[in-house]
Amino acid sequence: MNKKLLSPLAKYAAIFSAFFILNVSADILNEDEKRHMASLKATALQSELSYQLVESLTTEVGHRLMGSEGDKKAIKWAVAKMNKLGFDKVWTEEVLGTFWQRGEVMAKIISPYPQQISAIALGGSISTQGDGLTANIAHFETFADLKAAPDNSLHGKIAFISYRMERHIDGEGYGPAVGARVGGAVVAAQKGASALIIRSVGTDNNRTAHTGIMRYKEGVAKVPAASIANPDADMLINQLNRGGDVSFFLKLIAHSDPKVIVKSANVIGEITGTEFPNEIVSIGAHLDSWDVGTGALDDGQGVGIMLAAAHHINQLPQKPKRTIRVILFAAEEVGLLGAKEYMKLHKDNMNNHVIGAEWDYGTGKIYKMTSGVGELALPAIKELSGYIQALGVELSLENNAKAQSDMSLLSAAGMPSMNFSPDALAYFDYHHTENDTLDKVSQKDIKQNTAVYTLFAYFAAQSGIDFRK
Amino acid sequence: MNKKLLSPLAKYAAIFSAFFILNVSADILNEDEKRHMASLKATALQSELSYQLVESLTTEVGHRLMGSEGDKKAIKWAVAKMNKLGFDKVWTEEVLGTFWQRGEVMAKIISPYPQQISAIALGGSISTQGDGLTANIAHFETFADLKAAPDNSLHGKIAFISYRMERHIDGEGYGPAVGARVGGAVVAAQKGASALIIRSVGTDNNRTAHTGIMRYKEGVAKVPAASIANPDADMLINQLNRGGDVSFFLKLIAHSDPKVIVKSANVIGEITGTEFPNEIVSIGAHLDSWDVGTGALDDGQGVGIMLAAAHHINQLPQKPKRTIRVILFAAEEVGLLGAKEYMKLHKDNMNNHVIGAEWDYGTGKIYKMTSGVGELALPAIKELSGYIQALGVELSLENNAKAQSDMSLLSAAGMPSMNFSPDALAYFDYHHTENDTLDKVSQKDIKQNTAVYTLFAYFAAQSGIDFRK
Repeated sequence: MNKKLLSPLAKYAAIFSAFFILNVSADILNEDEKRHMASLKATALQSELSYQLVESLTTEVGHRLMGSEGDKKAIKWAVAKMNKLGFDKVWTEEVLGTFWQRGEVMAKIISPYPQQISAIALGGSISTQGDGLTANIAHFETFADLKAAPDNSLHGKIAFISYRMERHIDGEGYGPAVGARVGGAVVAAQKGASALIIRSVGTDNNRTAHTGIMRYKEGVAKVPAASIANPDADMLINQLNRGGDVSFFLKLIAHSDPKVIVKSANVIGEITGTEFPNEIVSIGAHLDSWDVGTGALDDGQGVGIMLAAAHHINQLPQKPKRTIRVILFAAEEVGLLGAKEYMKLHKDNMNNHVIGAEWDYGTGKIYKMTSGVGELALPAIKELSGYIQALGVELSLENNAKAQSDMSLLSAAGMPSMNFSPDALAYFDYHHTENDTLDKVSQKDIKQNTAVYTLFAYFAAQSGIDFRK
Repeated sequence: MNKKLLSPLAKYAAIFSAFFILNVSADILNEDEKRHMASLKATALQSELSYQLVESLTTEVGHRLMGSEGDKKAIKWAVAKMNKLGFDKVWTEEVLGTFWQRGEVMAKIISPYPQQISAIALGGSISTQGDGLTANIAHFETFADLKAAPDNSLHGKIAFISYRMERHIDGEGYGPAVGARVGGAVVAAQKGASALIIRSVGTDNNRTAHTGIMRYKEGVAKVPAASIANPDADMLINQLNRGGDVSFFLKLIAHSDPKVIVKSANVIGEITGTEFPNEIVSIGAHLDSWDVGTGALDDGQGVGIMLAAAHHINQLPQKPKRTIRVILFAAEEVGLLGAKEYMKLHKDNMNNHVIGAEWDYGTGKIYKMTSGVGELALPAIKELSGYIQALGVELSLENNAKAQSDMSLLSAAGMPSMNFSPDALAYFDYHHTENDTLDKVSQKDIKQNTAVYTLFAYFAAQSGIDFRK
């Protein structure tokens, strides 16, 4: 066992000992509340609501990139659903940004063996100039290899990074792969390349390339950046492996004007607490999506889960003591713009955010929960775990969770948080692709997902525990 | 047990009894030949040749629809490979046909909720007129339902058949689904519809629609025909389920001129038999593919297996007694044109075709072999099975095999045949789509596949058995 694991174990032991000495049987929830937990679990495991919400969002709205028509529709959709589901308060908070719009893309190997290549522009990329760009490929197996190339060594070339993301249940293959997508174009330009192409950050073998945000850097030339599908990256490598030059054509059109400011909004709804209305248990997801597929997994599923969780709690005979706030963040995909705006507006109010959790990845059952709370709150987490573990959710002995995605900004500002880890084995087959559609949402697993968030939110709202201490 | 199963069992019993009374230990192959079978098996299970051939064909040629540039390249490729692999005779036989060329396709739901739809033209479809076609959807769950609609009841509508193909290990879901693809446009036109769209004949959930041949009928109006991807069919149904009209836009461009005759060719190579050079064991696959993906599974894999099998046998210290003929058929996808041409040229020579087998589907291991031979040859099949069964191949008790695809025409003309059934669970995820690429070919399973065909071809060439009797 390593030190990292021993340390929380030791803490748990110490805290539980202290706790049990004081009061062996002192559960936080009373018998009524325990019955409500049981009934919430049964309701969430039976209800089709979260799935129906994803069906509605994906069918009636579809994809919804920051600033697009879909984004506007999604905001209206979310406000209407919250009202229909009986939330006590529903409002929006404006989020400003720019709108990047995808145009045509065409990619092919010109020689030695002409082949069509499935490609997609990375989000934020500039267009190629004129009628497109033809250049030889300079191949790098990793982003580190590209970084190690001498400056100005890639003039007249297209840099190609072929690193393949690994499949793991917790999605940990994403981290080592995504750096090339976000930062590859800057480094490629620094080395003198005319463009960047990367192997898709994805675990599938579909001819469907994965998009996602990329960045430029002030003072470094902007070059177009695209990803190509996994089978197409294999094809390119197979041609490179024959030893000669491989000539590649890329045409990529995108529209974006940094001077034109577009509007989006965080959509927020509350079940107002009866005893501590100013103490907020926040559960969230992001409402925006990439402009491909229908954003069913990313993050329609999170939207459905959060709306359903709050609704189920709201159907109890008595409302919870603390307020449950559902935050549907704007513009997560293009750089957490909604979360940043939320922090601007609510930074003086962070102490009222007693705990929070987001859903922003996964396709399967939640198998693990990890807390990020004060040490005195660990027994409460243990009790919460007792209600959830029959759903197949193991309590991690770490106590180092930061909330996912948008809510990581709230975590960083001191909000205690929970992280629920879903099975993400298949998630990166579809992530940021045309294949992110409703059929990928498991009608069975989303019930378990919803049950977990419902139980967490109710427990946190009802317990009165200070999760910071 | 049903009659169908009892009958071959009874025959087997009778024939084996007779056989064992005559000579209990009389194997067909002698000890030398048995050693050759063992060494061929070891070679095929170790060699990368069949995979390398698929890699070469898909990388250097890519897709190869009848009459296309790829088709011409593939013919040259096949001739060159056969020569390089040491075949004794290599030749081509011209096949004439027309060339259908895919153009642009655009499909979307206009209302109630605008959504892009992933579609592909069915092979042979005409174009939509002008700038495309907008019409309400008339939904039929099966082809039978469309057939049952009153004549002229679909004026101004697009007929949509939403039947979903089932996944089975032997691919048996294809039969019930493919009728709508081939014949749907004729029936849709008879009912007055302006166009046909069908749910893709495929088992996947990718936004990648499946193409395949469709037919018109003389005297019936031609209407454009496309398939849409499975998730898109779901989307259309979800919008239809809301009860109102669903308006759909289809633009489909294709080029074809029945007056322009293009050339292709069957490519044929032989390992000439030492004792009975005019007795032909034929093993085959088709060289053409659809114009999407790289035709790796369909039928690059078959091409690689057959070339490698013949090559392995040719490497033995002594050539086989009968001739082994590898036939790479042209234009299978557009209607068995190569096989039909082969029958025209060789119909008077069918008696020399002692037995044959094709590979034209599957992605995994062969798990079953079925004979289609005369009853007196059944003990030989049993002996052959003895050499193959350790590869995981069970001998079917049926004796009703027709060879696959092209070779079914040779079977129908009296050629005895074998059918080897591969695991086809995943095959129809990729069939006739952009996703039919090299990564779908199992580097492990193709060795087993090759071993099976190698052992079959050598056994049949060496045994001298009359498989007709």
